[in-house]
Amino acid sequence: MTGDALEDLARQVLERCRDAGVRLVLAEACTGGLLCARLTDIPGASAVVERGFIPYSHESKVEQLGVPLALLQAHGSVSAEAVEALARGALEHSRADWAIAETGIAGPGGGTPQKPVGLAFIAVLRRGGTAAVERQVFTGDRRQVRHAMAERALTLLLEEISVES
Amino acid sequence: MTGDALEDLARQVLERCRDAGVRLVLAEACTGGLLCARLTDIPGASAVVERGFIPYSHESKVEQLGVPLALLQAHGSVSAEAVEALARGALEHSRADWAIAETGIAGPGGGTPQKPVGLAFIAVLRRGGTAAVERQVFTGDRRQVRHAMAERALTLLLEEISVES
Repeated sequence: MTGDALEDLARQVLERCRDAGVRLVLAEACTGGLLCARLTDIPGASAVVERGFIPYSHESKVEQLGVPLALLQAHGSVSAEAVEALARGALEHSRADWAIAETGIAGPGGGTPQKPVGLAFIAVLRRGGTAAVERQVFTGDRRQVRHAMAERALTLLLEEISVES
Repeated sequence: MTGDALEDLARQVLERCRDAGVRLVLAEACTGGLLCARLTDIPGASAVVERGFIPYSHESKVEQLGVPLALLQAHGSVSAEAVEALARGALEHSRADWAIAETGIAGPGGGTPQKPVGLAFIAVLRRGGTAAVERQVFTGDRRQVRHAMAERALTLLLEEISVES
C-alpha cells in the first residue's frame, strides 16, 4: 500500500463506478498505461475496467481508435481535438459506458514554445454524451508530469460522473 | 527514481530494443498496463513502445486482438493457448516487431484448485517466429503477483531477443 493520492483516487473511481454500474475504457496516449495499471492494482477492478488502449505511436491512434489522420495532421496528436477523438474512439471500440482519454508531452524532450513539456489534454466522455475536455500544463519531471496527468484524469471523471448522475 | 528491479529491467529492455531497432507491442490481460506504464516512464520509450492493449474483459480479448472465442471457451482466458493467441493478435494488430503478452490471476479472488491465484502465462513472440510461452505460479499479494509477472515478462523478452539475434 503506497497510500498516495493516485491510489486514493483510483479507489474512489472504482467505488463510484461500481455503485453506478459504470464500466470504463481508457485511452492513454501519454500516461502509457499508468491509469489502467493503478486502477487494476485494486481488487475488484474487473467489475469496472472493461479494456484499455495505449495508442503510443502516431499510427496507433488511427489504427486502434479510428482517429482521423487528417485531424492529427491539422491539430497534432497533443490537442483538444485529438483527445476528444481518442475518447470517442475508445467508446466506439469497447463496451464501456465512460471513456477517459489523455494525450500530452511528458518530457524531457518533445516540447515546443506552443506545446511545452507538461502540456496535457484530458477528455472524459459518457456514451451518448458530450465530452468534457481540459487543457493543463503540469510541472515537474517526466514521472511527476505523468502522475499529475493521471490524477487529474481520474478527478475529472469523478466530477463528470457526479454532474451527469 | 525508485531503483526497483522492474525499473532496471525496463531500462534494459528499452536499451536492448533501441540498439536492435526493435519495436514492442504489449498485451496485458492481468498486469493491466503495468508493463507499458513502467516502460513508458523512461525517457525515449517512444522509440520502442509502439502500442499497447489491455484486454481486461472477456469480450475485449476477442474484439481487440482477435482471440477466437472458441479457444477461450475450450481453454479459458488464463491458459497457454490464450496467451499465445494474445501475442499473435497483438502483432497482427500493430506495427511492432516483438510482442509481450500475459494473462493470469492476480487475486485475491478468482483462484481455483486447477488455476490458483498467482498463476500466469507469459508469451513472447517475434513477428514470423515461434512463441516462447511460459507458465508460472507467483506468490504474494495482488500487487506482488502483478509485479512478479511484469518482471518475468521483461526477463523472458530479454532472453528471447538474445537467442534470436
